[in-house]
Amino acid sequence: MIKEIANHRSIRKFESRAIDPTALRTTLEAAIRASTCGNMQSYTMIVTQDKEQLSKLSPCHFGQVERMNAPCLVTLCADVARFEAWCRERNAEPRYDNFIWFLNGCIDSMMAAQNLSLEAEAQGLGICVLGTTLYTAEKIIEILELPKGVIPVTSIVMGYPDEQPPLTDRLPFEAVVNFEKYTPNTPERINELWSEREASSQTAELIEENKTENLAQIFTQYRYKGDDNVTFSKIYFELLQKQGFFNHD
Amino acid sequence: MIKEIANHRSIRKFESRAIDPTALRTTLEAAIRASTCGNMQSYTMIVTQDKEQLSKLSPCHFGQVERMNAPCLVTLCADVARFEAWCRERNAEPRYDNFIWFLNGCIDSMMAAQNLSLEAEAQGLGICVLGTTLYTAEKIIEILELPKGVIPVTSIVMGYPDEQPPLTDRLPFEAVVNFEKYTPNTPERINELWSEREASSQTAELIEENKTENLAQIFTQYRYKGDDNVTFSKIYFELLQKQGFFNHD
Repeated sequence: MIKEIANHRSIRKFESRAIDPTALRTTLEAAIRASTCGNMQSYTMIVTQDKEQLSKLSPCHFGQVERMNAPCLVTLCADVARFEAWCRERNAEPRYDNFIWFLNGCIDSMMAAQNLSLEAEAQGLGICVLGTTLYTAEKIIEILELPKGVIPVTSIVMGYPDEQPPLTDRLPFEAVVNFEKYTPNTPERINELWSEREASSQTAELIEENKTENLAQIFTQYRYKGDDNVTFSKIYFELLQKQGFFNHD
Repeated sequence: MIKEIANHRSIRKFESRAIDPTALRTTLEAAIRASTCGNMQSYTMIVTQDKEQLSKLSPCHFGQVERMNAPCLVTLCADVARFEAWCRERNAEPRYDNFIWFLNGCIDSMMAAQNLSLEAEAQGLGICVLGTTLYTAEKIIEILELPKGVIPVTSIVMGYPDEQPPLTDRLPFEAVVNFEKYTPNTPERINELWSEREASSQTAELIEENKTENLAQIFTQYRYKGDDNVTFSKIYFELLQKQGFFNHD
């Protein structure tokens, strides 16, 4: 298996030194080699290395950027604004201000993001994908001065690793790979898929720490709570409309 | 740069032979190594190799699967159904039936998809990402028997390449990489970014073929037309609601 894929782990603690400019350039160029819908490249990557900008962005990621001591943050955004500007300059009438093109931009961004992550690791860097991007996208837009037609999808912190965590465990292969048809989630199947993880000492510790009955409740009661999920859903969907990705008339 | 990243090109013509099972297994395992939000693995990959299933799915991709002679198609779906089933079995109350979790599932799917693509190439296979997935997701749901909480995001055809196309050109580095802040799309910038592509003989041929004034009009008038974009946006958004990814009360 490709070395970087097999060895990938999220890094959450970085050395303070800046990223070697050649390593950074190669990493960003690797991102650009990923396929994009219609070769329209409907995304933009904003690279933040300026200390002041990093401090401004860190609260958008609940303080993680500063806590991790990350010297670099790349914000990947779905972007139809650049392509539409080109169309308008050429007497062509663009209509990419809709949901399907947000999705295409999101898909383009994520394929680029994964190339970026793997190449960063090939360059001796470590990365962590920040899901917080979706929660605070409006503030990120303000800080990065994103115009209409551009919306943040994900962010990746990068730097030289100052920790070497173990590989993350995964559900068994059959959990996420189905052949020919979807495998229904019967109670028997669910019990079997989670049995190893639930029996681990790591899970026992988490339950003890969180004072819940089981691992599932840690997710529903603490990590990704119902109310928060609904709130963040509404906020991002409103922002999507505001940024001009939902014009369906 | 990682060899597979540097050499990636979309393959649209395959040999008829089936994929070596070990190569396929390693490719799928590589997909699973990608980061996922909260390690919840909110996606499922459905692998289609059965000829009859491939013929059924091909029209969902406007005939491309059969035209390319692809022996294998992987449909990547955002999936909260498996995780929610687990929560319910454990007396935990899941609320992942909303927009933010569709997006997380979409992001998880795409990071897995890019690992899948690169590892496939490391295994001597070729791939092509099919954007048509978003247009005909409802029919795909029916064929693959996807329950509520599961929705297709992208599909990847795979097989042994029967062509070796050139690398795809990209806009200049500065087009998609901005430092610290978004670079406004002024007419000067737009002209500069597209100048090389517009001056190419390939563009001249395309304009001749399509009888348009310029390259931009090929996109707006033929490839991704306004009406189609709006129609597909509405269809997918309705489906998102139907599949249970938009419960915000």
